[in-house]
Amino acid sequence: MSTSPVIETQFRVRYAETDAMGIVYHTNYIIWFEVGRGEYFFQQGMSPADWEQQEVYFPVSELSARFLAPARYGDLVIVRTWVRERRSREVTFAYEVLMAETGQMLVTGWTKHLCVSGEGQVVIIPPNLRDMLRPIEGS
Amino acid sequence: MSTSPVIETQFRVRYAETDAMGIVYHTNYIIWFEVGRGEYFFQQGMSPADWEQQEVYFPVSELSARFLAPARYGDLVIVRTWVRERRSREVTFAYEVLMAETGQMLVTGWTKHLCVSGEGQVVIIPPNLRDMLRPIEGS
Amino acid sequence: MSTSPVIETQFRVRYAETDAMGIVYHTNYIIWFEVGRGEYFFQQGMSPADWEQQEVYFPVSELSARFLAPARYGDLVIVRTWVRERRSREVTFAYEVLMAETGQMLVTGWTKHLCVSGEGQVVIIPPNLRDMLRPIEGS
Amino acid sequence: MSTSPVIETQFRVRYAETDAMGIVYHTNYIIWFEVGRGEYFFQQGMSPADWEQQEVYFPVSELSARFLAPARYGDLVIVRTWVRERRSREVTFAYEVLMAETGQMLVTGWTKHLCVSGEGQVVIIPPNLRDMLRPIEGS
Repeated sequence: MSTSPVIETQFRVRYAETDAMGIVYHTNYIIWFEVGRGEYFFQQGMSPADWEQQEVYFPVSELSARFLAPARYGDLVIVRTWVRERRSREVTFAYEVLMAETGQMLVTGWTKHLCVSGEGQVVIIPPNLRDMLRPIEGS
Repeated sequence: MSTSPVIETQFRVRYAETDAMGIVYHTNYIIWFEVGRGEYFFQQGMSPADWEQQEVYFPVSELSARFLAPARYGDLVIVRTWVRERRSREVTFAYEVLMAETGQMLVTGWTKHLCVSGEGQVVIIPPNLRDMLRPIEGS
Repeated sequence: MSTSPVIETQFRVRYAETDAMGIVYHTNYIIWFEVGRGEYFFQQGMSPADWEQQEVYFPVSELSARFLAPARYGDLVIVRTWVRERRSREVTFAYEVLMAETGQMLVTGWTKHLCVSGEGQVVIIPPNLRDMLRPIEGS
Repeated sequence: MSTSPVIETQFRVRYAETDAMGIVYHTNYIIWFEVGRGEYFFQQGMSPADWEQQEVYFPVSELSARFLAPARYGDLVIVRTWVRERRSREVTFAYEVLMAETGQMLVTGWTKHLCVSGEGQVVIIPPNLRDMLRPIEGS
């Protein structure tokens, strides 16, 4: 049984994302994690419009990040996103943010998500989403 | 017939609101306009929960701002908010952002809002809201 | 004497850019204006690193925007950026934000910028930047 | 030897902080952690201006957060901030975000910070700052 892919998203750092230290403000990397996560679903065939017809969603229940080196305005960065763990009712995504040109690692982290119904109940991940979320073992 | 008041809101600049020039990133002043606008309704007796029962909302249709001097991290700032013009289906709020301690003017501006129903139609402003939105003439 | 080009930048709306109305929060379009402006300089050969060696910068002194229709999470949008007016010490950029797939216009606007030295004095735009900022007449 | 205090900061949720799910976008709680951290130093007598004369700063090297319940637009929230651990060259702050009126816990978390000199070297925390950062044992 194959695993799901590692998805890469590439973009330039916006000026709005910097702070008075001249570097990217730390919570913006966490926003980039979600940009990677959105792209993950998108590249597996799940568009934003598809989400509206889906009966579940995946709010963040827990997150962790390590900041190794800063990005600056205009830097070209890559976010790598993959599934690290999947249970019946929750899924954990892992991320790496790195400099596109040098490969230097900037930030690593993960987010855990519960599968929640429209009524706010924690439910089992539906089969079509489950298939998109096959974890990379040992990652 | 009296006019509605000028509402003042005071808070400290957050580090997240600065940019690599060491000053507040310009769009954050526009967010502060809305903080002032929310406080305007709140102080007139219209809480966020009340909005959910209201059948209309006021999306921004136009905005203008002039940037005179910058604020920095930790500065205590005041946003002054009032109604400059009211028509049957639209309202214009005006704003001043200034340094709380010196009164130095930082940013001035205005936002225009259409009154829109839940179905997305432009409608007449309901009487209870109309009463909160009496313009200050010549402002 | 030719004019400078209209620069196009394309990207997807981030979930972080939406608000509780389910649409893009209005100040994010103004951030996109700056994404377009950064790309404008970038495509004219002026990288972020080049700015550090430049002795001037262009803070926003005034801005205006009209909101015609909303974008939503995942929408592919285009920002068109060009120079509308150039004086000896200031420049005005104009913008259009539109849906990439349908061409529907979402937001139009402009930002005015003073040319400021590192010491904070308003100065004449240096020749190398002046050449990048030839206005499109009547735009 | 006494410990440093638990600092409380209170404010209303901004509309700009919500997302299309109608609740606060998750990274904004992390920004609130920093609002609490800034207030922590401020209430210990360390103003933003004092930081400019200080020869060190405390970039975030690691963070963790658990999301228990969501806040919504207009909610009055409290951020509690204290020092959980202090070593010679690093300090860990802990946070709780809760509803001001009910005391309901919304988010808990911590951030770890290295003490870094203006030249980017990891250095020993200076005595004046060290005194402000006495940990609450077992917290």
